[in-house]
Amino acid sequence: MNPDIARLERRARDLLPPAVYDYYAGGSGRERTLRANERSWRRNWLAPRVLRDVRSVDTTTGLLGARLRTPVAVAPTAYQRLAHPDGELATAAGAARAGALFVLSTRSTRRLEDVAVQVARAGGTWWLQVYVMRNRALTIDLVRRAAAAGAQALVLTADTPVVGRKRREAGEQAFTEADMLVNVGPVQDPADLDQSAGVTFADIAWLAEISGGLPVVIKGVLRPDDALACAAAGAAAVIVSNHGGRQLDGAMPAASALPGVAAALSTAPGPGPGTGAGTGAGAGSVPVYADGGIRTGEDVLAAIALGAQAVFVGRPVLWALACGGADGVADLLSGLTDALAHAMALAGAPSLPQVAGIIGEPVG
Amino acid sequence: MNPDIARLERRARDLLPPAVYDYYAGGSGRERTLRANERSWRRNWLAPRVLRDVRSVDTTTGLLGARLRTPVAVAPTAYQRLAHPDGELATAAGAARAGALFVLSTRSTRRLEDVAVQVARAGGTWWLQVYVMRNRALTIDLVRRAAAAGAQALVLTADTPVVGRKRREAGEQAFTEADMLVNVGPVQDPADLDQSAGVTFADIAWLAEISGGLPVVIKGVLRPDDALACAAAGAAAVIVSNHGGRQLDGAMPAASALPGVAAALSTAPGPGPGTGAGTGAGAGSVPVYADGGIRTGEDVLAAIALGAQAVFVGRPVLWALACGGADGVADLLSGLTDALAHAMALAGAPSLPQVAGIIGEPVG
Amino acid sequence: MNPDIARLERRARDLLPPAVYDYYAGGSGRERTLRANERSWRRNWLAPRVLRDVRSVDTTTGLLGARLRTPVAVAPTAYQRLAHPDGELATAAGAARAGALFVLSTRSTRRLEDVAVQVARAGGTWWLQVYVMRNRALTIDLVRRAAAAGAQALVLTADTPVVGRKRREAGEQAFTEADMLVNVGPVQDPADLDQSAGVTFADIAWLAEISGGLPVVIKGVLRPDDALACAAAGAAAVIVSNHGGRQLDGAMPAASALPGVAAALSTAPGPGPGTGAGTGAGAGSVPVYADGGIRTGEDVLAAIALGAQAVFVGRPVLWALACGGADGVADLLSGLTDALAHAMALAGAPSLPQVAGIIGEPVG
Amino acid sequence: MNPDIARLERRARDLLPPAVYDYYAGGSGRERTLRANERSWRRNWLAPRVLRDVRSVDTTTGLLGARLRTPVAVAPTAYQRLAHPDGELATAAGAARAGALFVLSTRSTRRLEDVAVQVARAGGTWWLQVYVMRNRALTIDLVRRAAAAGAQALVLTADTPVVGRKRREAGEQAFTEADMLVNVGPVQDPADLDQSAGVTFADIAWLAEISGGLPVVIKGVLRPDDALACAAAGAAAVIVSNHGGRQLDGAMPAASALPGVAAALSTAPGPGPGTGAGTGAGAGSVPVYADGGIRTGEDVLAAIALGAQAVFVGRPVLWALACGGADGVADLLSGLTDALAHAMALAGAPSLPQVAGIIGEPVG
Repeated sequence: MNPDIARLERRARDLLPPAVYDYYAGGSGRERTLRANERSWRRNWLAPRVLRDVRSVDTTTGLLGARLRTPVAVAPTAYQRLAHPDGELATAAGAARAGALFVLSTRSTRRLEDVAVQVARAGGTWWLQVYVMRNRALTIDLVRRAAAAGAQALVLTADTPVVGRKRREAGEQAFTEADMLVNVGPVQDPADLDQSAGVTFADIAWLAEISGGLPVVIKGVLRPDDALACAAAGAAAVIVSNHGGRQLDGAMPAASALPGVAAALSTAPGPGPGTGAGTGAGAGSVPVYADGGIRTGEDVLAAIALGAQAVFVGRPVLWALACGGADGVADLLSGLTDALAHAMALAGAPSLPQVAGIIGEPVG
Repeated sequence: MNPDIARLERRARDLLPPAVYDYYAGGSGRERTLRANERSWRRNWLAPRVLRDVRSVDTTTGLLGARLRTPVAVAPTAYQRLAHPDGELATAAGAARAGALFVLSTRSTRRLEDVAVQVARAGGTWWLQVYVMRNRALTIDLVRRAAAAGAQALVLTADTPVVGRKRREAGEQAFTEADMLVNVGPVQDPADLDQSAGVTFADIAWLAEISGGLPVVIKGVLRPDDALACAAAGAAAVIVSNHGGRQLDGAMPAASALPGVAAALSTAPGPGPGTGAGTGAGAGSVPVYADGGIRTGEDVLAAIALGAQAVFVGRPVLWALACGGADGVADLLSGLTDALAHAMALAGAPSLPQVAGIIGEPVG
Repeated sequence: MNPDIARLERRARDLLPPAVYDYYAGGSGRERTLRANERSWRRNWLAPRVLRDVRSVDTTTGLLGARLRTPVAVAPTAYQRLAHPDGELATAAGAARAGALFVLSTRSTRRLEDVAVQVARAGGTWWLQVYVMRNRALTIDLVRRAAAAGAQALVLTADTPVVGRKRREAGEQAFTEADMLVNVGPVQDPADLDQSAGVTFADIAWLAEISGGLPVVIKGVLRPDDALACAAAGAAAVIVSNHGGRQLDGAMPAASALPGVAAALSTAPGPGPGTGAGTGAGAGSVPVYADGGIRTGEDVLAAIALGAQAVFVGRPVLWALACGGADGVADLLSGLTDALAHAMALAGAPSLPQVAGIIGEPVG
Repeated sequence: MNPDIARLERRARDLLPPAVYDYYAGGSGRERTLRANERSWRRNWLAPRVLRDVRSVDTTTGLLGARLRTPVAVAPTAYQRLAHPDGELATAAGAARAGALFVLSTRSTRRLEDVAVQVARAGGTWWLQVYVMRNRALTIDLVRRAAAAGAQALVLTADTPVVGRKRREAGEQAFTEADMLVNVGPVQDPADLDQSAGVTFADIAWLAEISGGLPVVIKGVLRPDDALACAAAGAAAVIVSNHGGRQLDGAMPAASALPGVAAALSTAPGPGPGTGAGTGAGAGSVPVYADGGIRTGEDVLAAIALGAQAVFVGRPVLWALACGGADGVADLLSGLTDALAHAMALAGAPSLPQVAGIIGEPVG
């Protein structure tokens, strides 16, 4: 059975202060993109195969050279101590236990070195999400510490030159105090921590360079032309995402953007040896991931069928963290992986590459 | 008038224990496919012809060599004694009386030899639905008994390598006890009765062989490529089906899959003489049937216009069985056949082949 | 302002016996086609022209040689004395007063010769709707009387080889007694009055012949191939219609069928001189009319833009008849014509031929 | 944050007499076009770009030679003293303060010379909306006064050969008394003030001529062919508009019509030097503007992405005027401009020409 994420969310809403719940749950503007995300993965019927040998179903996948038990990964989300006292330590531990990739947010409320220890202990993999902050020295310092601590890649959030405006966030100021951000600062001007609105494709190579050659994944890409520009600039992978409906309201759901981006990148040449992306998908292609509204094993199946190599899950992880700490996160991710395996068996696709093409016509 | 199936269902729900009703009525996951099935047959407008001579309307059809009064057939469903004390004996008798094909489930709660006698007495035709069980000896024994008892074909359920997960089936365990399954077992390990997840196209020929040459119909096909693979492997026919919305949630409705499958098979060569499918549709094509959500004569008309030679009805037969036993089943099937004949007259199509092409544009 | 037909219907429902209201208002089966008819005329946006001289707007049209003030015509409907004591006499008078064509039903409850006098007095035009009854002598007699009385055309209802089954008509038997049908019978076997289910295209010429050369209009055509077959068989015009949603439930709305039929007929050769259709649309084309769900001037505009030369209105005329007799009918038809003229001015189309092409993309 | 226009409207409804509110808020017929306008701008997903330098976002635009801080302009609306005692003086002042173009209605309730002074004082730009009145001498007088007072262009309303019929306007007669119309009349026959139903493309040149060479913008164009005809007749620009859903009910939303009109005009030659349109968009193209349902910065972004150079806002300006006079209008327009700039940053489009192409697939 799929994890009951709606129930998890209801429980988390009861547990959390309203301002925290709203900060996590809300989207920008009229929340059109937020609402569209979940249903978008169900916009095409699935076209299962029959009479395939599915006695053994394999959900393992390689993400930029790391072998993981599942293509379901933890999306970077901010201020996790607001959800649970252990914050990012618990999330990272839960992910590692489930064999899932963990992406740590720049706005983490636990020190990245401590997170790294937690992940290493469970044999896991983690990446660091970064902004190119207005004060670039802060980014240089953060990235070098992450590389030293064992981060396997950087995830540059590209869709946030300015922060989307949300109705539900009266209380957000409380969360953004410098003392919660243990990995950056302290700074005299809080604006130094903001993403620079001047970040461009050239910064992909800059990030690779300052990190000593880590692969750079670009998060927030919705257009084939942008995906190709990322690849040409040395990106190791792109994440099709609308930032969980928190940036431009009206931006397309990832499920709409994914096929075009995947098609464009499937023929793009992979990153060269000098970009730090040598552990990527190999010659001839740049891998595509996706996030936004993934809630069931069937959703994961659809995302992979539409061209994603992995999917990222954000809010459900926060609800699981709030309700159950590391165990809650591990149970959620294992549950989604098990539901994916079940759906793969029913679809006649015993491994992830065989999921390609099981998408049918649009739901009428 | 069409039979009032909604009323039949309400009456059956009142009569049956809730767990039994839920077991019959439920679907897998979020029941998206379950809900879509019924409305899918109404997704295109009908395009009736006028000024045709319809003084005589003929609903007879040939199914793998058997002549039947109606293209409306009884789908295989499990544990019919839960609906009525006479179980499959009543359903088979009702179907035969209405001139309709009856398909007996492997999970029948009446002995197949007794069912065979019942059908033969009324001059009817029956097929056996089979799984390739993990313990293949059980399947061999079952198939040989069916062939000896007069089954005219085998129906291999292809969409169930594992069983779909349903929310509504807290009570199902009660129904699956070995003593209800009178045609297979007893077994020491109940898992021996499950379909093997390793069943493949090669098992089509195996079933034909162990049955001494019975035609093998593949149920659960939704893709043109799979349909062609079935035909190439010796299938005598395919049933476009999503298992009544009980397997992969999100799988396409039969009405969506049918045109593509029918188009693919219309040009595929028919089964060869050595495959046991010699009573099939003849040289040059493999017939297509469909099930899932058929509730009215107009629905049957639509299915035939979309390329089906016959349709199978599942849950409505169970409601009719629960409410009226053999007579209930006969009334339901006769009622649907009469409603089909009425719709054929209004469509200017006095015989089933003339129904081709009466489908118009999608409902807006 | 458009006539408030919803209000007229509410008033008529209050005035009429429930069984009569249900008989008029109901449709066949699940009433899917009935419900779709009204909204179908609004399925495309209108694309008005600007900066055209619309100081004078002309709604006059030629229908099979007769000049009429409006393209809005009265559809044939049965048993009008159930709506008003004057029955068809009132409807015919109202139509003539509004400059609208009147079509008398075979199931009229007033003598056709009396209706003819009424229409002639007001300088109007009427046609007779006919069935080819099982007892053809009845049809011959009826048609000859109509021709003698001044009917200008025959309208053969082609979509009724058998009568559609309706849920709402418990009381219909009361209306079908022979003594209400003053133009046919009396007969010993009521089935003699039913349309023969064996009527075919050949009967078009037969009707022209027995009428002494009246044009024969075919009502109930939804397919381009059938429209072409009608033209080839000598039809003077076709009416795209699903019989007000009273025959095959699920049949396409006229608005869906109209463009295809109009396109097919626009290039079909017109009826030859020997078919009685010499007063038709002239060499090179067979005109198309439509009915089903027309309720506003904008609906009429849409129908004409989609290829109709005229539209027929059924139920609203019955509500107007019930509420206001001849005056009510005249007001309704004049009101629709005035609303059409207003819409033509706003669309920059001062005459009916200029309405072509004012249809835009489908409503999203 | 976007201005909360729904809240402004609720407050205005509370402040205004019901008949005035209804006059402003209502649309023609069934209000289908009225309702469709707002949602039409959200019918396609937005496709934002990433990794563009958006440190500086520029919303300035040139409209027929005038440089304005924003592409959001004030649409001409009648009888503004009904909303606020200062009427058009307040609206014009608010628009000028926000750097927005103001279009004065012929049915202004403040003298155009006074409005002109108000606009000039704030360094703004204004255009005059005109009808070609039945009594052309009235139009000649009005246009010459406007030209003398500093109007930079004329806006000919082309979609009003007759006035659309509205249900909600019982009280309108009260507003149309001659003494409210301070810029035209007094006249003995009020019909003299109505637009002539005989206005055609030739009147574009006539307006340019009587104004001494002002550019003539045509408002109400929905068809590419009409747009081309306007350009050929010397129009300086066209406004894609359905008159706020107040004329032909069922006319397409501007968002539907805009791409076709923009595509047609993008290749049309611009107006010649003798037409008074020499301050237009330059050689080779005629600019396109749009109105109808624009309510957010994202809506403006969508309109520009679909081909508009500017958008006009009608009802929201009236609500702002009613609630806050000139300040209210300025706040509304500044707020929309700020929200547009925010959306442009999030879309990776730091200037208006870069907004082209950020439209994705239709919302499902």
